Parts: sequence; C-alpha cells; structure tokens
Amino acid sequence: MNYEAFFERAVAALKGENRYRVFADLERVAGRFPHAIRHTPAGPQPVVVWCSNDYLGMGQHPDVIDAMASTARRMGAGAGGTRNISGNHHPVVQLEAELADLHGKQGALVFTSGYVSNLTGIATIARLIPNCLILSDALNHNSMIEGVRNAGCDKAVFRHNDMGHLEELLRAAGPERPKLIVFESVYSMDGDIAPIGQICDLAERYGAMTYIDEVHAVGLYGPRGAGVAERDGEMARIDVIEGTLAKAYGCLGGYIAGKASVVDAVRSHAPGFIFTTTLPPAVAAAALASVRHLKASGAERARHQQQAARTKAALAAAGLPLMETPTHIVPLMVCDAELCKAASDRLLEQHGLYIQPINYPTVPRGAERLRITPTPLHDDALIAELTAALVEVWDHFGLPRAGLAPTALAAE
Amino acid sequence: MNYEAFFERAVAALKGENRYRVFADLERVAGRFPHAIRHTPAGPQPVVVWCSNDYLGMGQHPDVIDAMASTARRMGAGAGGTRNISGNHHPVVQLEAELADLHGKQGALVFTSGYVSNLTGIATIARLIPNCLILSDALNHNSMIEGVRNAGCDKAVFRHNDMGHLEELLRAAGPERPKLIVFESVYSMDGDIAPIGQICDLAERYGAMTYIDEVHAVGLYGPRGAGVAERDGEMARIDVIEGTLAKAYGCLGGYIAGKASVVDAVRSHAPGFIFTTTLPPAVAAAALASVRHLKASGAERARHQQQAARTKAALAAAGLPLMETPTHIVPLMVCDAELCKAASDRLLEQHGLYIQPINYPTVPRGAERLRITPTPLHDDALIAELTAALVEVWDHFGLPRAGLAPTALAAE
Ligand SMILES: Cc1ncc(COP(=O)(O)O)c(C=O)c1O
Ligand SMILES: Cc1ncc(COP(=O)(O)O)c(C=O)c1O
Repeated sequence: MNYEAFFERAVAALKGENRYRVFADLERVAGRFPHAIRHTPAGPQPVVVWCSNDYLGMGQHPDVIDAMASTARRMGAGAGGTRNISGNHHPVVQLEAELADLHGKQGALVFTSGYVSNLTGIATIARLIPNCLILSDALNHNSMIEGVRNAGCDKAVFRHNDMGHLEELLRAAGPERPKLIVFESVYSMDGDIAPIGQICDLAERYGAMTYIDEVHAVGLYGPRGAGVAERDGEMARIDVIEGTLAKAYGCLGGYIAGKASVVDAVRSHAPGFIFTTTLPPAVAAAALASVRHLKASGAERARHQQQAARTKAALAAAGLPLMETPTHIVPLMVCDAELCKAASDRLLEQHGLYIQPINYPTVPRGAERLRITPTPLHDDALIAELTAALVEVWDHFGLPRAGLAPTALAAE
Repeated sequence: MNYEAFFERAVAALKGENRYRVFADLERVAGRFPHAIRHTPAGPQPVVVWCSNDYLGMGQHPDVIDAMASTARRMGAGAGGTRNISGNHHPVVQLEAELADLHGKQGALVFTSGYVSNLTGIATIARLIPNCLILSDALNHNSMIEGVRNAGCDKAVFRHNDMGHLEELLRAAGPERPKLIVFESVYSMDGDIAPIGQICDLAERYGAMTYIDEVHAVGLYGPRGAGVAERDGEMARIDVIEGTLAKAYGCLGGYIAGKASVVDAVRSHAPGFIFTTTLPPAVAAAALASVRHLKASGAERARHQQQAARTKAALAAAGLPLMETPTHIVPLMVCDAELCKAASDRLLEQHGLYIQPINYPTVPRGAERLRITPTPLHDDALIAELTAALVEVWDHFGLPRAGLAPTALAAE
C-alpha cells in the first residue's frame, strides 16, 4: 500500500488552491517588538510584525520576562508531571487564584492552551449535564467546535450573533431540556462582538447555562482587563468564562473560570486536563505577572484602542478596503487567495512588513484578507509606513478599493 | 434548572469512591531535585519527590534552565501567534530539525503537548487515508484513544501486546484496506514494553502503517535517547514516532516525526496544530538544549537504569509487592483505592516522601498502586530511606506483601 501517496495528494490539493501555508521563520527580539528578525535562505531580514496576537506586547514586558526567567532559574524548566502526579506547582496554583479573582468567580482551572481548555472544557461540562443540548454560534472557533463535537451530545447551531434564531432554538428545546450556550465575545477574524447581555437575558428566560470564549478580549477590555463581559457589566451573569494566556497576556496556556462546583467537576473529569503535563512553573509565573499587571494598569488598553483607531483612520483615508469593526482588529479585504498571498509576499519582500495572508479555511473562500493587529507599540510613524506600503502594494496588483464585509468561517 | 447540582453530584460520586483527587502544592527548587517544597496550610514542608516524570531531572539541568531563561530574556515570553500567523519562531524551527535528526526521519512537527500531538496527529493521519482502519492497543493512553475517536474512522482494538490478536485483525481487514497500527513503546503504568519488531513484521506483511508513542521512552532508551525503537534497531521501520518534551526532556511540548509528506500533511491539516498558539521560544529552546544534551550523553541513561534497578532490588529484598517491569518504572501494588490513598498520605505526612496514589481510571479498580520513578538523582541513601519508610507504612496498614500484577487501564 502506498501510504505516502495519500499525504502527497492532500498537500498537492492545497497547493493547487493557493492555500499551502509557508511559515515565516521569525526571531523575536525582547524589547524591540514589533520589530523582529526574519530568517531567510539569503540571511536575516529586519521586519515589522503587524499580525501578532501578542496584542499589547506583554510578551516582551520586563516584568513578564523577568518572572519567566527568574522562575526558570529558581524552579527549573518543566513541571515534571501531570497536575495530579507531581506536576502541580505553586505558580499554577497562584495563577488559578488570580484568574478566579479577575473574573469574580469562585474558581479557575488552567490548561496547556486556550485550544485545550475549549476542547476538553466544553466537552466535559456538556457530558456532565444529562441530555444536554449545546447551542453554538455558527462562527465559533475550531477549538469550540471540536469541544462540542467531543461532547457527543445534541447540538444546534445558531446563525452568528442572531438572537432571534437563538431564541427560536431555545424555545424549541423546551424548558425541561438542559441547555448550554457556547459563544465568543470578540470574533477574531471579523473583529465583531457578541450581544452578551442579550444572550444572558435569553439564557435566563429559557434556563440555559452560558459558556463564553473571551480569548481575544481578556487583558484588552474591561477596567481590570477581564474582557468584554466585564466592560459590559455582564460578567457575573456568565456561568463559565474561558480565556487564553497566550494572546494579550503574551505567554501560553488557557483557562476556564466559574463556580467552584463546575471547576472542580472539570478538574476531576476532563481528559485533556488530567492526562497531560502541567504548564511549566516559569510560564505560569510569567502569565501571573502579566495578568496582575493588566489588572492594575489600563494604560496599555487605552493606547491599544488609540493606535487601532489611528490605523483604521489612516487606512480608510488612503481608500483601502477596510472591514469596519468595533474592536482592535483591522481586516483589510483582498477576497482572492492568490492575490492575498501575493500582497503579503510583496509587503514582506519589498517593505519588510509582515502580515500573514488569511485564507480558507480560516475565513471563507472569497473573504481572503490581511488581518492587521496594531498594538500600543505600533507608533504613528509605523502606521504611516504601513499605509504607504499598502497603497504601493494595492496599486501594484490593482487590488479592489471598495470595502467588502463577508463573514468569517473558522478563525485561527 | 439547577445546573450546579449536576456538577456537585459528579464530584460527590468521586468522593464516595475514594477517587477524588487532591493535588499536592509543590514548589520545585532548581538544583535540588528530587528535593522540593510542599506548601501546606501549616506552612512549607520539605519533601522528596518519588513520582516525577522528569525521569532524568533534565528539567533542572543547568543547560536547559539556561536556555529557557536566556531565551526569555532575548526573545520575550510568548510566541505571540499560531505557527501560521506570526507565531513561527526560530527556536521551534530548530527544534523540529533536531527531532527529525534524532529519529532519523525526514521531518518533525512540534505541538503544544504530547497529548495534543496524539489527539490531532492520529486523527489527522487517519482522516487523510481513505477508508482507514485503525488497529489500537487496548492499553493505549487516553490521548491516543481520543485521537482514534476523533479520526471518526473504523477501529479495532487488539489485546494488549497480543501479536496473535493483532494478526487476526489485520488479516480480517483484508489486503486492500488501508490500516494504521497505533501503540506505545513503554506503557507507563505497568512499565512493560511493546514487541516493536514483531509489530513491524506484521505491518509489513499486511501492508499497514505504524504509529508509535514513545512518550515514556524518548531521552531514556537508545544510544542517542531516541527511544526503545532506536535501542531495538527498529526505528527506521516505524512510519510515525510520537514523543513528548515534557517527561525525560524536562520541558513542555510534543511532536511527531516521519516522512516529509506525512509531516507536511499533518502540518497543513491538523486542527490541534493549526488553531493554537505556538510553544514559547524559551520553551522550545530549553527542549532543544535537552534533546541535544541527551543525544550526546548516555551517562544520565546509564545511571537512571542503575538507580531504578537498585530501587527494585531494595524494595524486593524488603518483601514489598513489586510489579516486575523491564523498564525504569517501579509499580508497588496496593490494590485498594482507600488504602492506596492512605499509604500515600502517610508517606507524605510522616516521612516527607511524595508518591501520588494511582487509582481508577488511571489504572483498573483493584489495581491501585504507588508508582515509583527513581531518577539518576535518587542516590542510594534516598533509596534506603524510601525502603524503610515503605516498610513502616506497609506494617502500619497491614498491606499485602505478595506481588500482584494486574494490567493498567488508562495511563495518565
Ligand atoms: C476564539 C479562540 N479560542 C481559542 C483559541 C485557542 O487559544 P490558544 O492559542 O491559547 O490555544 C483561539 C486561537 O488560537 C481563538 O481564536
Ligand atoms: C503514553 C502517553 N502519551 C502521551 C502523553 C501526553 O504527553 P504530555 O504530557 O506531553 O501531554 C502521556 C502522559 O502525559 C502518556 O503517558
């Protein structure tokens, strides 16, 4: 049997559709973000990164780096075991307490990633609820989709942010049926926001439990950076809040926060939590430093919003096809896989600007885009440089100037 | 609807069965392993850890710590994105090249954990093979079981290490059917080893592809630490080798290694690889240092085997009910959930020795045990101290002295 042929064919198909991914080989330089070095066969190239999810540059904050480096020196590199078998260390215990406090919940549980927290968190919660029906937003992230699938229970998908449709499905399920609504606060590819208050209203009216993914919002919104639910004053109404430590907090790991009973049940039953090595002490300590910093300081959040707004204004003024968003995410539409890749390549090669093309399946075919994420560290000069480069690339390829706004399919 | 009641009930059921898990709150101290500090309500307690999967103490090796701390200082804390979107950094690229070389394969792919590498690796490989039948060892780890389930294709489970049964299933599948055999080299709870050569013979005879989990063997066996398949001279015959960076290598992360086409196809299709933030540069750099060290140095492996053998000899001489194993894993049978927990508690409270009780579902009911993992850093004095403490505890509770050897169900 020629097994290799199966794999070669799968890769060839991607190449044929212009969606074979080539990873840029980057070297981050502490203290110089968003500047980085790109390793190429021709040697190192200085680049400016415009597509990082280290949204606030906290991955390079001195306190965070210090926590990581000094904890490694004090405690070593790895955890050495699963949470249950010798891998439960003090920094992760402290981190969980901090996250519970951040979200005003009784408890929190840390996983090795936001991906795993959704995958095993949603599945475990739903499995512990007899005859659970999951109501899932149509644009939920792949990790949530896998969590729903993993749960093995019935599911109903509601049209993205469509409260009428959600209500219809809740009503159809009947009052006796246990129900779990899973959704995101900020959808990362279109940068739009869920009507959290309305979802909570519906959940209360129809007796549903709520699970929100705030992965693209924690650290970024709310007075203490607890997310959009905090900003909107809805945090206490949500049953389970899921977040990541790998984006605005600049480290690695994911978590859920909620009532003590829910957290303890997931801790005790979730295979993706039980059967894997704990995050290293140094990573937990770094995340802890980052969460603590952003809890007390709003300066990064304010400047983040300001620079995102300035970037949007500059690109709009230049006539570039911006998708309007109420968030820090700046999608620039190309709507063609090949051109999107070509535009990205030219930005990198000619201008030293790194913006990864976003193609199917991360967004739907025909909704290909450059997803730009300004941070507090992208100053006005960099914004001007970006705008000029984009105009050059748009002119070079004759790319469309009119704004388009298709919706995303599967955010990365 | 009272959702909390569902979760409270689930936890109460565990407590009723004496399998509610309480995590020891440990603080590792770099350079002092296996000595550590346990945080208790009454204050810090010095303990000796006897159940770590940091099998060689590499998590505290100066080169590994140095790589982690210095890379954090040079590159920052997190990767800042997924592999595709700005999170592909130079240390992870180097690590993949090193792992491919370690296993003599064309390529390797790093995941955030061994758990995720199995979960999404097995599922993706099987999905890319039309009409694939997975043949899975009955004692495979939960992460492999989830990967098989996730694949959504047909599966057949063969009795643990039973070559007759595996052959029967291969034959029954017919020569035209694509087949994937998934198994481990070292099974971590019973410490036994798969007949790798015979599995390869069968795979060749019946045209099956092979996937081996060497999580409890990489770093530990073979002239360069590539695992049992390397030691046995079978490595080149295996199609996909999966390993972890979190046990013998003392860090965090998992990987697969294999033909370039397989690795590229998984890289391009595996959701658990695509939709998640990359390991931090500092973690990849630490793992790289560890892999490189153990590739060149056999001293840790030699002393590891020696101290494991000495521990076994000492416990056997004291009449303790050892399960015999051909590996570094030393299971001491208690065969009762409550007594196993009580023995572990007494070892910790009275003797300052930390050995987590292993209960269902990690092992079958009635096969509860203390799983002891001597490292090169457990010297003869510590072995003597352990032996005396175990004898005291065995006497105190009147635990069985006769050896028993039931098999494990779900290794953690
Ligand atoms: C909405 C959403 N949830 C979860 C994740 C996974 O988080 P992590 O990168 O921590 O695995 C991502 C992206 O990576 C995401 O976009
Ligand atoms: C056989 C086996 N495979 C995979 C894993 C998962 O590896 P990791 O801890 O890197 O997630 C484990 C244990 O954790 C294991 O015992």
